[in-house]
Amino acid sequence: MQNKNYVFIARSIDGYIADKDGGIDFLHSVPNPDNLDIGYNAFSERIDAIVMGRNTFEVVLSFNIPWPYTKPVFVVSSSLNSLPEDLTGKAELVKGALSDILEHIHNKGNKILYIDGGSLVQSFLKEDLIDEMIITTIPIILGGGVPLFGELPKPMEFEHVKSEVFLNAITQDSYRRKK
Amino acid sequence: MQNKNYVFIARSIDGYIADKDGGIDFLHSVPNPDNLDIGYNAFSERIDAIVMGRNTFEVVLSFNIPWPYTKPVFVVSSSLNSLPEDLTGKAELVKGALSDILEHIHNKGNKILYIDGGSLVQSFLKEDLIDEMIITTIPIILGGGVPLFGELPKPMEFEHVKSEVFLNAITQDSYRRKK
Repeated sequence: MQNKNYVFIARSIDGYIADKDGGIDFLHSVPNPDNLDIGYNAFSERIDAIVMGRNTFEVVLSFNIPWPYTKPVFVVSSSLNSLPEDLTGKAELVKGALSDILEHIHNKGNKILYIDGGSLVQSFLKEDLIDEMIITTIPIILGGGVPLFGELPKPMEFEHVKSEVFLNAITQDSYRRKK
Repeated sequence: MQNKNYVFIARSIDGYIADKDGGIDFLHSVPNPDNLDIGYNAFSERIDAIVMGRNTFEVVLSFNIPWPYTKPVFVVSSSLNSLPEDLTGKAELVKGALSDILEHIHNKGNKILYIDGGSLVQSFLKEDLIDEMIITTIPIILGGGVPLFGELPKPMEFEHVKSEVFLNAITQDSYRRKK
């Protein structure tokens, strides 16, 4: 199987993945009393490892919950010097050029990668390294915050794979890079 | 029937309504050989009049086609002094505060308005004057251009009304302001 990079991320209608204060409370603006899975479990089964930026990593740590990932996690950061000791064997700090980072992760036997976090997704898109995107849209306009997308050198076309609606409110669109 | 303001607009996955050069060729990046209507005809029947910004008006004029609208058009512009003479009776220049513009349009018997153009939609959203949005998403990442959304003073929740897929490629999501 070929190496692939996937995105699975939620945004507001106006394209923000966090609000003006960096908060993600809007992700829960649609009531989900039965804690319905919004496609994450099926997605999770398709990936070998998770690659996340420092911001996303710190948001996960801020939840103060047990480490939520069963797959290997690679934290991309040029500023961190180490990860907390209790994450040894669960998460690994990686830095450098994306190509070197990917080679390192691939050499460990991980082919299908979940690329998480706005900045990291943008870095991958800049080098046209995203193969599939599953974008969940929460029915709210935030009016500012952390954008999912940013400036890119050139347009990129995608194939529409499917669209789903969850909880009569949340849409989820899957796209595959057209090459 | 109450006065209502609707949006019907197409954007890229990353939220641009025109590319870096102001072009809208990306709207045709999905082949549509049979010229399938993408929901516009049904939408058009629901509105009484069109309110558009100067940019949108000038894009329409640049097409060099017969005036394409059968409903009354109001062009919002503080810089234009007049509209071309051949549009007399078809389009009218309006300026001033949104509340005054709306009062003028309503007084002419138009209740359901189609608000068109990125800047104008943003102006309406800033005053929480949009009741319904039909957002069409073209499966392309442009990487820059004219954004549909901008900074707003506060978040606004919407109800998801429906989602459709056209040509196996183009998604269209309808939202109603939750009040």
